Amino acid sequence: MVVSNYVYICDNLFKKMNHSCPIPISDYPSVTLAHGGGGKLMNQLIEKMFRASFANPMLDSGHDGAVFNMESARMAITTDSYVVHPLFFPGGDIGSLSVNGTVNDLAMCGALPKYLTLGLILEEGLPMETLWRVVQSIRNTADQASVHIVTGDTKVVDKGKGDGIYINTAGVGALNHELVISPEQIRPGDAILLSGDVGRHGMAIMAVREGLEFETSIRSDCAPFYEPVLNMINEGIDIHSMRDLTRGGLAGALVEHSRQAGITLEISEALVPVGDEVQGACEILGLDPFYVANEGRFIVFVPEAQAGHALNILHDSPVSENAVRIGSVEDGDRAIVRLNSRIGAPRIMDLLSGEQLPRIC
Amino acid sequence: MVVSNYVYICDNLFKKMNHSCPIPISDYPSVTLAHGGGGKLMNQLIEKMFRASFANPMLDSGHDGAVFNMESARMAITTDSYVVHPLFFPGGDIGSLSVNGTVNDLAMCGALPKYLTLGLILEEGLPMETLWRVVQSIRNTADQASVHIVTGDTKVVDKGKGDGIYINTAGVGALNHELVISPEQIRPGDAILLSGDVGRHGMAIMAVREGLEFETSIRSDCAPFYEPVLNMINEGIDIHSMRDLTRGGLAGALVEHSRQAGITLEISEALVPVGDEVQGACEILGLDPFYVANEGRFIVFVPEAQAGHALNILHDSPVSENAVRIGSVEDGDRAIVRLNSRIGAPRIMDLLSGEQLPRIC
Repeated sequence: MVVSNYVYICDNLFKKMNHSCPIPISDYPSVTLAHGGGGKLMNQLIEKMFRASFANPMLDSGHDGAVFNMESARMAITTDSYVVHPLFFPGGDIGSLSVNGTVNDLAMCGALPKYLTLGLILEEGLPMETLWRVVQSIRNTADQASVHIVTGDTKVVDKGKGDGIYINTAGVGALNHELVISPEQIRPGDAILLSGDVGRHGMAIMAVREGLEFETSIRSDCAPFYEPVLNMINEGIDIHSMRDLTRGGLAGALVEHSRQAGITLEISEALVPVGDEVQGACEILGLDPFYVANEGRFIVFVPEAQAGHALNILHDSPVSENAVRIGSVEDGDRAIVRLNSRIGAPRIMDLLSGEQLPRIC
Repeated sequence: MVVSNYVYICDNLFKKMNHSCPIPISDYPSVTLAHGGGGKLMNQLIEKMFRASFANPMLDSGHDGAVFNMESARMAITTDSYVVHPLFFPGGDIGSLSVNGTVNDLAMCGALPKYLTLGLILEEGLPMETLWRVVQSIRNTADQASVHIVTGDTKVVDKGKGDGIYINTAGVGALNHELVISPEQIRPGDAILLSGDVGRHGMAIMAVREGLEFETSIRSDCAPFYEPVLNMINEGIDIHSMRDLTRGGLAGALVEHSRQAGITLEISEALVPVGDEVQGACEILGLDPFYVANEGRFIVFVPEAQAGHALNILHDSPVSENAVRIGSVEDGDRAIVRLNSRIGAPRIMDLLSGEQLPRIC
């Protein structure tokens, strides 16, 4: 059977819908321009759907923004917009992606994620039930990641000027340490660790989009990974730099690091885990899994002497239980990534011109 | 002459373009999907256009997020997406709007705006020159408002799945005082002050969209107004609540306040300033200026005894030099807004079902 979007929509629906849609479908089966107009309908949408789902004291103030206290003066801020197509896919949806993606960007700064903002751009005609499913997914994912949605904004654009839902989240997190985490901190000899297998998110999206059938369906790796990151920091690992492997994949993150720091990275192809289904799907579609986007994977640069300890900590969290060391930082100032391939011949990795798969996040 | 978009595009172009587009138009006359793909083209766009325009130490770290220190533990966060159509209009553009709107939301929390995030959703085929103009406008407006763009994100969606540019900004600001600014703080007897004339932003957009011709063109009131707000706080005005008059206009802000606080507001129609061109345009189009969106106006609730002092402070800033008192908070717990009309008969203001003018911000 060809895997259809519908299966995943239903899958998602039954797993995550705790309550029925609070906006009567009989009244408003779909989103109208008036739902973004600052009047009664927008008010109803905000009160009954958003405020009821994300209830917390800061959001409840009903202000234009949220006022809060941070326990640490040092903090991080990040933002991402999410335009993934389709909205639902095996292992996640645009709602879970929009929380995990921003939470993970904060983790990559070494920050404990605290508060998220939520900006929705809805297309006129979006089924109200679809919006409700996404909102429920945002809520559940935020609960899992222990972050609060503290303020938000809703815009509605004319039919044909969007694609269902686009989401922006911005997040702030607290840095309760003095580590400076940046490519400039990388030193020759540093170990390069990878938190798990690569390519699952991009190929999960691609499989749904292309209606591909595999023996086992590929599920996105979409997940929050701040836990193992903060565990490393708390256990005294002197993290030099980190990067999540979203657009551009593993290769993109490595090449950007080598350029920003002006260093040579040496990676062993055979050490990089790639699942059989992902490898197979990539071969069918002519894609390189090293360049495919992930939403629950990261690389981390640590001093050689701490590599074993860091790996042990990573293995203690389910999201990074298959973490491996994939290479080292070499001596020398050539800003290149050298990949030692399975057949022995080294090759230089470069950025692709664009993305192999558009709109995967 | 019918006012065309083109006039304003050129107007904007000549006023604000300090440099020519850093992406060679001969190479990339328009935005492609690859510009959002995490590869070389996205890298080029970020480095040459965004990082060069918004240069600051936090952005320059090239990280997934920005790390910063706040001087006060108490702070505010807010977000807005901007989907205004057309992108350029008399008195502003989507770029200036996306900075001023978020800066103003922070001001309404009583916060000094500090840092902004910038999320761009670009439509494939957007002329590179248009993007460059918007980026220049964002930069100039951020400079004027003394805020830094510290981190950002760029997505590109397929042609026909957007409308040129959608922008999300989130902002953080510092609260260097202990005031609690919220509808719940409003007390009977409070004076209601309005910072200037209403309806100009919405009617400026509408005039361009409909190709309307007036004796003098209506310019948007789009402007940052944190200066008079912070001046009031610094001068000891015990601000009870504030709200900017965007979607839903003056009427929306008043009705929401009366409902959230469970109070009766009494407003004199004759005291609310409406420009002649705005009044004329509203009459032609059958719109009520009290419901038309503004992007540089706010209302503020202050104790009766401080109303005169607060007005004097407002008059000292150009953005609120025409501030007036428009009414008072009455005794009683009916959550209504009573408008005493010019002809003497009072009427109750309510929220409209939707917006009179879609996509004005």
